[in-house]
Amino acid sequence: MLSNHLQNGIETARLVWSRLPNSDDEALDEVGLSKKSDGSRSESLDYEVIENNAYREEQAQRGKLMVGYYVGVKWFFALLIGIGTGLAAVFINISVENFAGWKFQLTFSIIQKSYVAGFLVYILFNLLLVFSSVYIVTQFAPAAAGSGIPEIKGYLNGVDTHGILLFRTLIGKIFGSIGSVGGGLALGKEGPLVHTGACIASLLGQGGSTKYHLSSRWLQVFKTDRDRRDLVTCGCAAGVAAAFRAPVGGVLFALEEVTSWWRSQLMWRVFFTSAVVAVVVRTAMGWCKSGKCGHFGSGGFIIWDISDGQEDYSFEELLPMAIIGVIGGLLGALFNQLTLYITYWRRNYLHKKGSRVKMIEVCLVSLITSVISFGLPLLRKCSPCPEVELNSSIECPRPPGMYGNYVNFYCGKDKEYNDLATIFFNTQDDAIRNLFSAKTIHEYSAQSLLTFLVMFYSLAVVTFGTAVPAGQFVPGIMIGSTYGRLVGMFVVNFYKKLNIEEGTYALLGAASFLGGSMRMTVSLCVIMVEITNNLKLLPLIMLVLLISKAVGDAFNEGLYEEQARLRGIPLLESRPKYQMRKMTAKEACGNKKVVYFPRVVKVADVVSILQSNEHNGFPVIDHTRNGESLVIGLMLRSHLLVLLQSKVDFQHSPLPSDPRGGGKPISKGISIDDIHLSSDDLEMYIDLAPFLNPSPYVVPEDMSLSKVYNLFRQLGLRHILVVPRASRVIGLITRKDLLIEDNENSETVELQSTSVRSL
Amino acid sequence: MLSNHLQNGIETARLVWSRLPNSDDEALDEVGLSKKSDGSRSESLDYEVIENNAYREEQAQRGKLMVGYYVGVKWFFALLIGIGTGLAAVFINISVENFAGWKFQLTFSIIQKSYVAGFLVYILFNLLLVFSSVYIVTQFAPAAAGSGIPEIKGYLNGVDTHGILLFRTLIGKIFGSIGSVGGGLALGKEGPLVHTGACIASLLGQGGSTKYHLSSRWLQVFKTDRDRRDLVTCGCAAGVAAAFRAPVGGVLFALEEVTSWWRSQLMWRVFFTSAVVAVVVRTAMGWCKSGKCGHFGSGGFIIWDISDGQEDYSFEELLPMAIIGVIGGLLGALFNQLTLYITYWRRNYLHKKGSRVKMIEVCLVSLITSVISFGLPLLRKCSPCPEVELNSSIECPRPPGMYGNYVNFYCGKDKEYNDLATIFFNTQDDAIRNLFSAKTIHEYSAQSLLTFLVMFYSLAVVTFGTAVPAGQFVPGIMIGSTYGRLVGMFVVNFYKKLNIEEGTYALLGAASFLGGSMRMTVSLCVIMVEITNNLKLLPLIMLVLLISKAVGDAFNEGLYEEQARLRGIPLLESRPKYQMRKMTAKEACGNKKVVYFPRVVKVADVVSILQSNEHNGFPVIDHTRNGESLVIGLMLRSHLLVLLQSKVDFQHSPLPSDPRGGGKPISKGISIDDIHLSSDDLEMYIDLAPFLNPSPYVVPEDMSLSKVYNLFRQLGLRHILVVPRASRVIGLITRKDLLIEDNENSETVELQSTSVRSL
Repeated sequence: MLSNHLQNGIETARLVWSRLPNSDDEALDEVGLSKKSDGSRSESLDYEVIENNAYREEQAQRGKLMVGYYVGVKWFFALLIGIGTGLAAVFINISVENFAGWKFQLTFSIIQKSYVAGFLVYILFNLLLVFSSVYIVTQFAPAAAGSGIPEIKGYLNGVDTHGILLFRTLIGKIFGSIGSVGGGLALGKEGPLVHTGACIASLLGQGGSTKYHLSSRWLQVFKTDRDRRDLVTCGCAAGVAAAFRAPVGGVLFALEEVTSWWRSQLMWRVFFTSAVVAVVVRTAMGWCKSGKCGHFGSGGFIIWDISDGQEDYSFEELLPMAIIGVIGGLLGALFNQLTLYITYWRRNYLHKKGSRVKMIEVCLVSLITSVISFGLPLLRKCSPCPEVELNSSIECPRPPGMYGNYVNFYCGKDKEYNDLATIFFNTQDDAIRNLFSAKTIHEYSAQSLLTFLVMFYSLAVVTFGTAVPAGQFVPGIMIGSTYGRLVGMFVVNFYKKLNIEEGTYALLGAASFLGGSMRMTVSLCVIMVEITNNLKLLPLIMLVLLISKAVGDAFNEGLYEEQARLRGIPLLESRPKYQMRKMTAKEACGNKKVVYFPRVVKVADVVSILQSNEHNGFPVIDHTRNGESLVIGLMLRSHLLVLLQSKVDFQHSPLPSDPRGGGKPISKGISIDDIHLSSDDLEMYIDLAPFLNPSPYVVPEDMSLSKVYNLFRQLGLRHILVVPRASRVIGLITRKDLLIEDNENSETVELQSTSVRSL
Repeated sequence: MLSNHLQNGIETARLVWSRLPNSDDEALDEVGLSKKSDGSRSESLDYEVIENNAYREEQAQRGKLMVGYYVGVKWFFALLIGIGTGLAAVFINISVENFAGWKFQLTFSIIQKSYVAGFLVYILFNLLLVFSSVYIVTQFAPAAAGSGIPEIKGYLNGVDTHGILLFRTLIGKIFGSIGSVGGGLALGKEGPLVHTGACIASLLGQGGSTKYHLSSRWLQVFKTDRDRRDLVTCGCAAGVAAAFRAPVGGVLFALEEVTSWWRSQLMWRVFFTSAVVAVVVRTAMGWCKSGKCGHFGSGGFIIWDISDGQEDYSFEELLPMAIIGVIGGLLGALFNQLTLYITYWRRNYLHKKGSRVKMIEVCLVSLITSVISFGLPLLRKCSPCPEVELNSSIECPRPPGMYGNYVNFYCGKDKEYNDLATIFFNTQDDAIRNLFSAKTIHEYSAQSLLTFLVMFYSLAVVTFGTAVPAGQFVPGIMIGSTYGRLVGMFVVNFYKKLNIEEGTYALLGAASFLGGSMRMTVSLCVIMVEITNNLKLLPLIMLVLLISKAVGDAFNEGLYEEQARLRGIPLLESRPKYQMRKMTAKEACGNKKVVYFPRVVKVADVVSILQSNEHNGFPVIDHTRNGESLVIGLMLRSHLLVLLQSKVDFQHSPLPSDPRGGGKPISKGISIDDIHLSSDDLEMYIDLAPFLNPSPYVVPEDMSLSKVYNLFRQLGLRHILVVPRASRVIGLITRKDLLIEDNENSETVELQSTSVRSL
């Protein structure tokens, strides 16, 4: 039915495409053409017309070897990503904790003599760190600002944001977040670490950055979008695993929050990456324990260990816990809304004025943060220390230069402490540890906690969206644990039971705020358990998360979705819109004219078509010998550009050429304007058949749009062709037809005949 | 282009299908027709030709209400599944632990006087319990035998096994597993609990069992396969959550091991179900703590708490841990292979001889198990108790009637214990607790552990596949922790360090055997952490799992896949076979003739076609006015049978009828032989247009089969139509076309124009 030469061309294309390691895959639309110019590998990759069966088998064998090599490289990359991200996390942690440690040590030693001098030193130290961060970001790596998670999410959903995975972004992210977190701003280093992991993964996938001459040729196996996406998924998981020292949480975060589609093979590799990160971080921490890394390394592998917290809970406690969930949902949704407005305003007014304004803005925010965190505790009256219990390792006030609760700040007598300074004038990690701490009932006054909550919430909102790397996890935990502890205080007063710990309520508060803002469920739950090492609270965390997410969902979308939308990253939601049910595929296409190519096309026509529109995919249509037209495939703009640039496949004849090796290195960067063709070139022709994707996904014109949506999203597609209803059915494929036994020796295809319900 | 009446019919069908709550969904192929006969709901559901816009809006409003009701019911069901499965788990646990507790109490009290009498009582007690189990299973619920997980996996993959989700299976599973586990066989109750959860979920989805008059009409909202599948997924997660008291592990198990496809909305609901289970089980355990439930309730929520185990590990330990992983992979793969052979033999020879043989077999296995578990410790020399440390809560020998290490069995002196009896003559839960226990170095001799390993491994292999409910988790943990502890003993002797705990190695061994046999990764890892409450071992568990799965994968498939294949459940693997790359969709269809229907078909023809083949889906073809043929949809056998049975839609004219309300209750049970039609009936016609699925998924004939495979599996389809290449392209759908703003007030469809890479 297909005329002969047509069939030939399509056959060629099919073989070329299927020789690519993963051409069987969903995202085939975007697969790159294989390399021809690379001398060492072209031999095994180049296609030749194969008539001979023995030769064909040999080819298949080679193909299998190739697949083996490819799988090996994949796993090796997973290992490298794990090691790289783990080391990056350790480096960031060491730097941040040392900068912050020196800062507080210095300030505390100076305020023994003069509070004014200490204040100035504190402000300057912060300002210096923050300025270095904003300078790096605005001058060298603008894409390193913010948390990066919305952009990564977009990337894995299929949308590239400019510059998000460059080498300079990686560097900017690492050094920028050291400055911004060390400088005491109301933001965290966890989101940036996820971005860092993603950058490391992406750079590995490219074989290093070409711009900085770091690329190595043998690693450039991964030219397809899907492979890079898989690597970036591993990188995200590694980032979370490294940031929270929560390997399982990392896997789940990558699964639940970041990727749009998912395969179980990938899960296995992501799991491996996370395990590697855990081992690397743990080893580094063991090495640092003896004091080799300065202030870093004193804590254990668990960031905020509260395994000695509340063991059990009674039924009456479920009500206050539910209230925490509701508060979390409300405050989280409010946070999303406020940051949305502020970011909108920043993008449209403030940040348009150039990087100088961005720098001034961040420095101003740093100044305000320093003043508030130093000044407010000064205004607060000191409280007398509680009576010391025997066997308690908690000292009050804590000795100078140590970490812990009961900070003595601007207190006259020896046995006094400043509860606001304990959480405000401290690193965020220590503040959270103090808020989560058990056996410290009545440490904080409600007034201090409320003051802190209002102030820190405002600071977090204002800081969000400035031009420094900024994560929202740690500020979220700070906010949440503050009101959680507030509720806990009321519960302790109300129920007057002995086994209620305020620290447990602080943990639930933290979970509720993150749930209400980020709307994650399983991954957040696992992360909370892994950072606090208290599995017994799992059902309570689940309960609080369920409530806070439900409450938050009533108001707006999750933080990352809101931000992604604001940044113009068109994420496809997991569910099609309601009105799509009533629309057909044809209606969705609207009246847009379809621009298509004939099989053999004049170069001049290609150029004019590419210049005249912005489409990225073009159907290719050919005619059989009896004059019927046939859609023979989809040609991508990027492939056309490569063909135009190399000129190797130009031909003089307007007739289809012999089947020949397709295969060009694909590079994303070229634009039609970069290509210069002589007038002779323009008069030549290209036969597109060997280069097109011969079987793009098609849907009939009157298929419900919601069905099309599911197809599009589940398979991670970029283009779907809408075609008329078929005139006849050639066959029906059912489960039975897909159960082919993996029989290596014979070519017989065996079908299992079993108790299948629906055939 | 479609002629008018054709268009009408298709339009009707599209509207009928899209009125169903989830007609937008992937598994649409199998969606049931909506109900017409049900008076109360027919009004809002019945379709009428709508000319009027206001009316249409009202309909849309009603549709939304309907969707709201439907979502509400879904969540309510998730709650019920959680409560039901939690209660079932508590019931099974209470029964098993009490039976086992009485048994050991009785035996221990009798052997104070006579070992022979104690032996007989022990054997009889076990035999009675096991016989009750096998009697229930063989006589009432044959589908309750085994673990049920392969069948559930098959069900969620799209294959029904007969009787797997019936009410009688549920009852058989619950009471059967009480008997088999209480009777001391080498099997666990965890797998059956997963099946129990799935049964509860499925019965809820049907609104109860119709056979036992338990069905309630208002709950029968869920008639589609996909909804039932979602519920069963929730049920599986609930089962694991209840069995291991591991809610997050349950969610991940359902995600990783059971389902073939997955959506994030479902994850959220599964998470909720797991949380409910955790709360229910925890509440029940709190209630039982005071001794109200007999022997049950003494332990905590964590099954085998080893949070006081080894804190840290040194680099040298990684090698023995890797060895544990390798052993796990080898023994696990061997286990899969042996059980495969034995099950094959059983199915083909032994079990064909009827249920009497099955009963005798199980009783024989019980007898052997009893003899070995009682007899072997008798042959073992007692060891002297270790010197008692101060502050240690472990007594040696343990006081009679208590749980714990150091069982005194057939030992003369007071300060002696029998190490083989400690693990063999004990409930499995206690044996595992003893193997995992910390601070008990040198409790076991290598000889005892080896004896136990060989014996228990053989028993587990022999017991597998008998006609009782049987899980493989607990036996796997037993086997694994035994060799794990053996390795641990060598490590302790070799490295002579103080902080190495044999119990930690036992835990790693358990993880490795499960990994080597079941080949799960993330979910198993989380389950291991949740049942032992030791997060610090997470990286080690991950490492061991990675190795054991990799080693096991080199030999055969996972336990569930092997068993599913043996049982003729054709699971679609996550990855298409290698040779599919070279095949086209057309080749997969082979030379099978496509049986199709015209739009209006004679009843007699329908009957003869349905009788003459076994197909479950039939393309429907119609002709436009200018004579072209067109594929207008896919008609399912089940829907045809309903039409034939009800006879309401028969018509005398062979011409297309007016668009009318489609919608029939769909019931799976009918066969073509059950339907009796008069000769008058046979002469009538049916217009299929309102009842068919108007847009089944189609693929072009020369699409690569591996691409078709991905489409089929990712969307959970049952049928794909293979059609000729299209002659023209009507449009191209890209991401941009799918980004429709959810605008409630106006009908304008707004498109976001943003920095999308590929449009």
